Amino acid sequence: MKKLLSLSLIFILNMVYSQNIQSPSKRISVDFKLTPSGQPSYVVNYKNKLVISESTLGIKLKDKPSLDANFEIENTKTASFNESWKPVLGEQAIIVNHYNELTVSLIQKGTQIKMNLIFRVFDEGVAFRYDFPKQADLNYFIISDEVSQFNLTDNHKVFWIPGDYDSQEYVYNESKISEIDTQKLNLNNGIGVKSIAGKHMVQSPLMMKTAESLYLNIFEAAVVNYPVMHLNVDVANYKFNSQLVPNAIGDKAYLQTPCVSPWRTIMISDDARDIVGSKMILNLNDPCKIDDTSYIKPMKYVGIWWEMHVGKSTWDYAGSQNAQNAADGQLKPSGKHGATTENTKRYIDFAAKNGFDGVLVEGWNVGWEDWFGNWKEEVFDFTTPYPDFDIAAISAYAKEKNVKMIMHHETSASVANYERHLDRALDLMKKYDYPAAKTGYVGKIIPRGEFHDGQTMVNHFNFVARRFADNKLMVNSHESSRPTGYSRTYPNYIAAEAARGNEFNAWSTGNPPMHETILPFTRLLGGPMDYTPGIFEIKMSFYDKSKTEQVHTTLAKQLALYVTMYSPLQMAADLPENYEKYNDAFQFIKDVAADWDESKYLEAEPGDYLTVVRKAKGKETWFLGAITDENARKSEIKLDFLNKGQKYKAIIYEDAKDAHWQKNPIAYKIRALEVTNKSKINLNLAPGGGTAISFEPIK
Amino acid sequence: MKKLLSLSLIFILNMVYSQNIQSPSKRISVDFKLTPSGQPSYVVNYKNKLVISESTLGIKLKDKPSLDANFEIENTKTASFNESWKPVLGEQAIIVNHYNELTVSLIQKGTQIKMNLIFRVFDEGVAFRYDFPKQADLNYFIISDEVSQFNLTDNHKVFWIPGDYDSQEYVYNESKISEIDTQKLNLNNGIGVKSIAGKHMVQSPLMMKTAESLYLNIFEAAVVNYPVMHLNVDVANYKFNSQLVPNAIGDKAYLQTPCVSPWRTIMISDDARDIVGSKMILNLNDPCKIDDTSYIKPMKYVGIWWEMHVGKSTWDYAGSQNAQNAADGQLKPSGKHGATTENTKRYIDFAAKNGFDGVLVEGWNVGWEDWFGNWKEEVFDFTTPYPDFDIAAISAYAKEKNVKMIMHHETSASVANYERHLDRALDLMKKYDYPAAKTGYVGKIIPRGEFHDGQTMVNHFNFVARRFADNKLMVNSHESSRPTGYSRTYPNYIAAEAARGNEFNAWSTGNPPMHETILPFTRLLGGPMDYTPGIFEIKMSFYDKSKTEQVHTTLAKQLALYVTMYSPLQMAADLPENYEKYNDAFQFIKDVAADWDESKYLEAEPGDYLTVVRKAKGKETWFLGAITDENARKSEIKLDFLNKGQKYKAIIYEDAKDAHWQKNPIAYKIRALEVTNKSKINLNLAPGGGTAISFEPIK
Repeated sequence: MKKLLSLSLIFILNMVYSQNIQSPSKRISVDFKLTPSGQPSYVVNYKNKLVISESTLGIKLKDKPSLDANFEIENTKTASFNESWKPVLGEQAIIVNHYNELTVSLIQKGTQIKMNLIFRVFDEGVAFRYDFPKQADLNYFIISDEVSQFNLTDNHKVFWIPGDYDSQEYVYNESKISEIDTQKLNLNNGIGVKSIAGKHMVQSPLMMKTAESLYLNIFEAAVVNYPVMHLNVDVANYKFNSQLVPNAIGDKAYLQTPCVSPWRTIMISDDARDIVGSKMILNLNDPCKIDDTSYIKPMKYVGIWWEMHVGKSTWDYAGSQNAQNAADGQLKPSGKHGATTENTKRYIDFAAKNGFDGVLVEGWNVGWEDWFGNWKEEVFDFTTPYPDFDIAAISAYAKEKNVKMIMHHETSASVANYERHLDRALDLMKKYDYPAAKTGYVGKIIPRGEFHDGQTMVNHFNFVARRFADNKLMVNSHESSRPTGYSRTYPNYIAAEAARGNEFNAWSTGNPPMHETILPFTRLLGGPMDYTPGIFEIKMSFYDKSKTEQVHTTLAKQLALYVTMYSPLQMAADLPENYEKYNDAFQFIKDVAADWDESKYLEAEPGDYLTVVRKAKGKETWFLGAITDENARKSEIKLDFLNKGQKYKAIIYEDAKDAHWQKNPIAYKIRALEVTNKSKINLNLAPGGGTAISFEPIK
Repeated sequence: MKKLLSLSLIFILNMVYSQNIQSPSKRISVDFKLTPSGQPSYVVNYKNKLVISESTLGIKLKDKPSLDANFEIENTKTASFNESWKPVLGEQAIIVNHYNELTVSLIQKGTQIKMNLIFRVFDEGVAFRYDFPKQADLNYFIISDEVSQFNLTDNHKVFWIPGDYDSQEYVYNESKISEIDTQKLNLNNGIGVKSIAGKHMVQSPLMMKTAESLYLNIFEAAVVNYPVMHLNVDVANYKFNSQLVPNAIGDKAYLQTPCVSPWRTIMISDDARDIVGSKMILNLNDPCKIDDTSYIKPMKYVGIWWEMHVGKSTWDYAGSQNAQNAADGQLKPSGKHGATTENTKRYIDFAAKNGFDGVLVEGWNVGWEDWFGNWKEEVFDFTTPYPDFDIAAISAYAKEKNVKMIMHHETSASVANYERHLDRALDLMKKYDYPAAKTGYVGKIIPRGEFHDGQTMVNHFNFVARRFADNKLMVNSHESSRPTGYSRTYPNYIAAEAARGNEFNAWSTGNPPMHETILPFTRLLGGPMDYTPGIFEIKMSFYDKSKTEQVHTTLAKQLALYVTMYSPLQMAADLPENYEKYNDAFQFIKDVAADWDESKYLEAEPGDYLTVVRKAKGKETWFLGAITDENARKSEIKLDFLNKGQKYKAIIYEDAKDAHWQKNPIAYKIRALEVTNKSKINLNLAPGGGTAISFEPIK
């Protein structure tokens, strides 16, 4: 009798103080409990092995009691969810959203404040968020800190960039957790505005690998009306603590109940392909809120852009003068201005001839003479073209050629100024039939004191996406906070940069060959990246003998990036004249799709290599992209993803035998094969190289 | 020979180190010199008596050497200026701008930075500003402090309100300089957001009177792209130091050469009428920048507004619910909503019947359920009417009745949100033919950390004026930074509140009877004030027996305010039903003009009394307004301002014999006289009373 009572008590205690929830396949398991002080905590196991040791959770409020102790469990609830949904544009036509959910309703003793923790456990990871229900004693509140822990179990390998409130445009550092140290970085890296916030602070998505070859990734999803979360690392104990990005006066977030925090996510798998192919981040966002999505279309585009990066032309019209004088008609053309009517027509002709959808033109509007580095509020008005850019004539010419113009809105981070002008800027786009704009946020933010990753700016980027949607326009943001899946909700937010893009290769230390092998495990989890691949003239010495910069790639790898670096908005970034020189290789860029029915990650190792195949949306054509880091790589690929019984013509664009990203980057070869789903193909990737393949059904 | 040399040396030293400039009549004299440390300084004399003792000048820069020492005079230049200009709307048809100017070009030893000081000396005062010419070594710069001194010579009487970065809605304190102490104020005064920045900090315009009955006023003009200047007082030594309002991170102003500071002004006269009637502040602003001013018209208006202040109706539609639910259709009408279609039509009928130009409607748009006090960013969208406000029908009805609607844009100080929506808000105004809007900024500013008086907000208020001008619309801002003459440059900025308005009488300790006798010497120097006079039902107990609040006035004084409180936008603030009860007195409000050919201040003593007569624009009708403080007052007025030989019918609206602002405020009498320019009229003002007179030529 005594024993029975004891068992029963344990059962009751478990009911009240601890809750377990598992993923659909049961491979991931989360245990929630309250600590003796009444603080929420959780533990994560993967295949019965501890992955996240006891980690506490809580929120600190400004001028109110902290929500990190004295809680009692009022109620718990579990649910299962399994649905499929169709993204407007995406890596696959159908996305499965399958998870088990645990809602723990907490009430704080004394204050009687209610806070819920919601856990969702997918087969590739865990997500949790704070939920603040509507209640009399908590209406408006200010978050002064979030104290979420992610306590790891060992000194894992980690791919990290520093916790910078203003930029993610860093190369990745591969080290042990214990070796994270932002003060040891070489910061002569071409980034315009840096605000590294701590010696041991890193950004998410944070990709890790354990000694037992378990892959882990800490990130967040659905960052809406909340700042970005960075991570403060206890390097001695492998503990990661949430670090929300503050505003000008040090507050973190202004909220009103009912409301939720973003999801904090921990992906876990013993197969890296599960992580790189995961749609968990998208799944954790709200469904599409746009009724008529007919205007949201994939675009491949060229543009007047790389030619400024390589020094052939300039964004500005006048060179040295002050943009504020433009109104006085004092601007004298430097003769190097890229965005002229004539040059734009040349790009339109090139786009039309080669089947591109769009032409981006940067430097079209007044302001570039004096746009950067001075925290200047009124730079651009987003509506005044330079005198040599005849927007009406260009728009008419593009229409005649069946090419769409892509607008450029560089804000120079003067966000207040952009918001003031946005409606007029969008009106101009509609007037001249621009379906999309690329936005830019280079510089220190205005309102002054705000950071790119603070709540104010997160709200701005999301506001811009919604405002574009109101006008049936698409937007591609550069230098924005990194996406966390908002493109599910607003798929007109078609792409973003928000990581170190290809441009850095033109004028800085650039991006090492491994860079593109880690981005799909980090930045791309949150949404498409406008990486701007396709550089054929790889060495800047081509333009200027004295230059030593180069893209850290082979030409074949640049082709492969169109497949490995998912985006429905893909630039062929190099100059028309360069593509014309390598027209056979250019054929792949012309052929490759930008929207997909299916994607299969065949091989994946973060920081080392990636091989993916994708089936073009609504077609039977497949494309393969394989890339490697600085190491050469061979592998054999089974083509069993192809349709049974169907013959395909495979055109293989690969590194030539002696190709090498540094020594011989352009060397490529192209071969054609007839293949079926029983065939195998050998991939031979040069150091810093890649392979791109198109599979066209033979009729 | 020795003596001659010595004289010559003194002359040269004078040339280099000291400069004198006098007003056209020579009554005011300014001496500029560099101190031994090379700091600019000045002294002001009035009729050979010292008014400002040696006061130093300088600017401190962030991350750059201070511009407050080591200067040398590179050059000096004097000039005289005498012109007349015609304001679009104003107290007089022609304004004379007559001054002598001294420009001192300084260069700093070592840095070689150039800074000029420009002095303008008018017969009623001195103005000076800092001028930063375009130069290689000073392009962009951040002002961390301005250190301008105004050193007075004695412990003058001063009318002060506390140096509050967010509000000027205070009652005036009358004390000695040595008694200034913001910590002794009763702050239970109805002001929503207070940010008093120091124990001894006061605001300008600061009106003073010396023991010798000299009147002084320290203020500023042309505050454009610069924060408001408050004054830090050394109460022991009667020294006033400039205190610029900071932004969220403590910076004061972001500038780029060439640029100027606002004018710092010191008005001086032994006749108070010279100050209250001065147009110096307007003269120091740039001329009108609007080409087509045809849409800028004076307006007398009524509105759905006072009825909310007295508790008869509400701004909000639903009462207790949250405005964020409006989109869900969850709002349930409380039955007390003021801005209904029906009530608006009633006001339109009343306006049409009584010859008013406009009808203001507050509380017409969704958001009022939860608009104040929570630093909430997204409150109003400025375009969504409540379901019981049929904007299309109202607009059509107003047009039929030949009445213009006045829009209301309460921003709740969420300026970022207003700027985002402004273009759409103005589009709505144009669509429904609203010629003007009243804006409101009640609350803590968003962008968070900014103040109402900082550079960001000064720029906002000016931006809004320009944006309204772009759309040929007029704006009247409430809770803005106080005007400093920008309405000369943008006369569509037709009025502002920016001081403690009549509304405070309805629900707070209110405004003492002296309040309206000081405002013309302070707030009104910078531009028209929308004080909203015309309250006939003076005691709030009329609406609710339990209320003790009241307007601190007699009814006759309310009429006089239409003349003493200059504004081309004048509200008849009380309820239609109240005017109908006192229809004979209401006649004055119906008759009085709002734009003038001429204004003559007949009697003036700050804080005590004011008598002014004005001639209606383009007419031969004159109006007199006379007000007093809590003391009764008698005076005899010569009517020599009237046209010679012309007979006039004078209708005198005055306090009844036993009238008293507190004991018997409504008691008035009306009498008519035939008068000429040889006549005299005896004024009999009750305690807290006034007299209003119309003079209509007899044909």
